[in-house]
Amino acid sequence: MTEDDLIAAVMDAAAVLPDRDVRLGIGDDAAILALDGGSDLVACTDTLNLDTHFLASQPPESIGHRCLAANLSDLAAMGAAPRFALLSLSMPAPDAAWLEEFLGGFGALARRHDVALVGGDTTRGPLAVAVTALGSVAPGTALTRKTAKAGDRIWVSGSLGGAALALADPDAPQERLLYPEPRVNLGQALIGVATAAMDLSDGLRVDLPRLLGRHGGRIDADRLPLAGALRGRSEDWRLAVCGGDDYELCFTAPVAADTAVSEAAAAAATAVTAVGMVTDEAGCILASDGRDIDLGTLTGFEHFS
Amino acid sequence: MTEDDLIAAVMDAAAVLPDRDVRLGIGDDAAILALDGGSDLVACTDTLNLDTHFLASQPPESIGHRCLAANLSDLAAMGAAPRFALLSLSMPAPDAAWLEEFLGGFGALARRHDVALVGGDTTRGPLAVAVTALGSVAPGTALTRKTAKAGDRIWVSGSLGGAALALADPDAPQERLLYPEPRVNLGQALIGVATAAMDLSDGLRVDLPRLLGRHGGRIDADRLPLAGALRGRSEDWRLAVCGGDDYELCFTAPVAADTAVSEAAAAAATAVTAVGMVTDEAGCILASDGRDIDLGTLTGFEHFS
Repeated sequence: MTEDDLIAAVMDAAAVLPDRDVRLGIGDDAAILALDGGSDLVACTDTLNLDTHFLASQPPESIGHRCLAANLSDLAAMGAAPRFALLSLSMPAPDAAWLEEFLGGFGALARRHDVALVGGDTTRGPLAVAVTALGSVAPGTALTRKTAKAGDRIWVSGSLGGAALALADPDAPQERLLYPEPRVNLGQALIGVATAAMDLSDGLRVDLPRLLGRHGGRIDADRLPLAGALRGRSEDWRLAVCGGDDYELCFTAPVAADTAVSEAAAAAATAVTAVGMVTDEAGCILASDGRDIDLGTLTGFEHFS
Repeated sequence: MTEDDLIAAVMDAAAVLPDRDVRLGIGDDAAILALDGGSDLVACTDTLNLDTHFLASQPPESIGHRCLAANLSDLAAMGAAPRFALLSLSMPAPDAAWLEEFLGGFGALARRHDVALVGGDTTRGPLAVAVTALGSVAPGTALTRKTAKAGDRIWVSGSLGGAALALADPDAPQERLLYPEPRVNLGQALIGVATAAMDLSDGLRVDLPRLLGRHGGRIDADRLPLAGALRGRSEDWRLAVCGGDDYELCFTAPVAADTAVSEAAAAAATAVTAVGMVTDEAGCILASDGRDIDLGTLTGFEHFS
């Protein structure tokens, strides 16, 4: 496989992906994208490196899925509709079989979320994948961090800890680690409902303070929606709070919006669970078995990132 | 230096860069950018890897400059006005001194071209830098490849071969290799004038056929604007044609647009030189000393990319 073959393989994969609003895709110096005038553009980038974020033994299909999923999860956390992606691929040598599987995983997720692959770069180097995703949102409506109010409820989507358990125990189900599901529909449904939102890539321990900013939070270990495989383990909340890679959304909304949150979750066909409240005090507290545990005192697990 | 310090250093650098139309920059899940309704968005991405695109001995300031310059050069080749950049940085360990110099080089070029640094990602891994650049252009006016017509004149900006000479000869001036100048103003000035355009990152030998597509071209070695340090060497055109990394623009325009091209070049304060003509025959020919040399038969120099 030559480098030209490699580029051709990426172009072939892009050609069968959505192309709405793509005036010019891969093959020129840059892509040309027609954004409708009434939108804000939402942009993010995320890199996966061999041995840091994935292992050589991981299926290439999963790496293709995850590098796009991590970015779509960031767009979801802003309430943005995914539109376009650019892919930068570094490989020690062009590898047709690896690439086909990688692009299969990338493409399947892209198709499900109507994402066009509009540009990229292939270079020689240690195996690494950098993706930039572009989305759109009605002007001024994007969901952001640090905009929650004291008294808001704290919610999380889906279930927590499944990815961390997969990482800690190779015999546990690996699906949540290998194929995380970005909560794209839920993010968009929460616009006008949530007061703040982010995605949980590093776990509540680290991410909740990032979401709440100068506010504090109080969450209840018993309310956390634990991944099924975690239940029954001692301190089963620990992996759910300290582990990363779940890519669930964590968001806040006024108590008066409980019904609106439920409706948004139903519309997005995604489960949501109220896990606590935003407080006016600094610090994030986890209440477990009658104890108040400061999230800042918990130790993280060594994990990919 | 912790990873948080590293992110803070990038955020500090971003804070003193332009922020026009940035609704929300680094620090959330994604950036929010207000593109004016009447524009097409132009997006490209380019990665530089240690030992493939740069050496450990290269000044970090130059790496910061080059990773942005390569992207701005792609935007220039489309005639787009640069607007925003996202930076993905992989480092074996956070290194404050390296980062400060890197961001100094990145920031100086960003300020000159009014580019906001709106997002990014820092990860552990082999030293590598991936930049995504976003620009804008009036709808439907971007300059593209493969749109030249037979009989159009072929032009190049600035001078050729300086970067390749620097790479081949450590005693030659290194400026063109370390601090290439993206022809951002020229690209925009050529909208409505040029029939096709691209930037020369791999040299005319490889890039001219990419520009002309199904057409051929005939260029005259004696007309090539050689970098000063090349002159007087035997077959001095060879590095200019076969070497990369010059990041000059190569573009085509009808002969009737000669005056318009000169005016665009003057407006952009960038020299341009007519080097040949687009032909109706397949193949790109270099005329030198009465010989016709097929560009496809020339051998490239081993170089960074």
